[in-house]
Amino acid sequence: MVHQTTLTLPAHGAGLHEFTERLAEIVARSRVRTGLVHVFCLHTSASLVIMENADPSARRDLEAWLNRHVPEDDPHFTHTLEGPDDMPSHIKMALTRTSETIPVAEGRLALGAWQGVFLWEHRRAPHPRRVIVTVTGE
Amino acid sequence: MVHQTTLTLPAHGAGLHEFTERLAEIVARSRVRTGLVHVFCLHTSASLVIMENADPSARRDLEAWLNRHVPEDDPHFTHTLEGPDDMPSHIKMALTRTSETIPVAEGRLALGAWQGVFLWEHRRAPHPRRVIVTVTGE
Amino acid sequence: MVHQTTLTLPAHGAGLHEFTERLAEIVARSRVRTGLVHVFCLHTSASLVIMENADPSARRDLEAWLNRHVPEDDPHFTHTLEGPDDMPSHIKMALTRTSETIPVAEGRLALGAWQGVFLWEHRRAPHPRRVIVTVTGE
Repeated sequence: MVHQTTLTLPAHGAGLHEFTERLAEIVARSRVRTGLVHVFCLHTSASLVIMENADPSARRDLEAWLNRHVPEDDPHFTHTLEGPDDMPSHIKMALTRTSETIPVAEGRLALGAWQGVFLWEHRRAPHPRRVIVTVTGE
Repeated sequence: MVHQTTLTLPAHGAGLHEFTERLAEIVARSRVRTGLVHVFCLHTSASLVIMENADPSARRDLEAWLNRHVPEDDPHFTHTLEGPDDMPSHIKMALTRTSETIPVAEGRLALGAWQGVFLWEHRRAPHPRRVIVTVTGE
Repeated sequence: MVHQTTLTLPAHGAGLHEFTERLAEIVARSRVRTGLVHVFCLHTSASLVIMENADPSARRDLEAWLNRHVPEDDPHFTHTLEGPDDMPSHIKMALTRTSETIPVAEGRLALGAWQGVFLWEHRRAPHPRRVIVTVTGE
């Protein structure tokens, strides 16, 4: 069985935005009992990450760490036409993940107790973002 | 064919711990000849990486590089309740990988000559870690 | 359906080398309409990344950023027998991706408008690199 759907995630500014629940619903509707769900981000200035979803301070510290290491005002950047937050966005995307694949077990998204699935928006301005979700299995 | 199993990896302290052989056994038992094996780490302070497995100095240098760039004593961290090695662990996880997918060819794990599959434990205290292994194919 | 093939990418020096077209051809030949294509890099000093493929300055800035953060002359490195660019190559590989999985929709590689698939060669000397491409779906 292969079930594929495109999800449009609402426009937010920079930060980690959880969409675990929407993924779980797609998995439930697919009727796949054992298999995998693949999520693919169709953008190069946003990315995906599976992260601790209990305490928001962990996400804030993660985001702040990456902002300190990939600052907007890096004088080495030449790709600056689309604004100061564009080149850092591409680097942050490359250092995290364009897609995530998660097991489906007993018909459910088999995440660990503290794991959530996040779209990491790297641009400051809000952009709606599209992800393709593919559920495979039996 | 879909074969799914949960593997508990023994508790180790921080570092890269290879489990290629255990994966290879699961692939052999699955009887899949051509396909993929997906390994998913159920934790947010440990991660996976496929790394050079011939010379241990390469792993030590990799680990030391990451420790220098994500130090425990970073005064910016606010997520510190679970100890000084907790927030660095989440960042190191986000910069590496929660899951890996590896081809299965002719019934075997199709890794390159110098590749091994490692659980990267980011906490100092030993924790047993669980990974879900899903073999798909024909 | 599972279609698996090994692709040898031509030898280039360090940098991001796009091979989106070759992947698209493999997907077309597979006759899979809905599914996934998985690309696996068989090396530990080269990696994969999905990156902005319109403006080469974005790739140059990405590469230059990583070179500044993982410099060849880091005095902490001990794994230096294979040359000064070997240990940085392993670190850059671990920070990016050994494999990428991309949706196949309506028989085509379902990338976003600005996404391309790149082999990121981290060694200075040209090496031919092998990737295993596995197309699954229906």
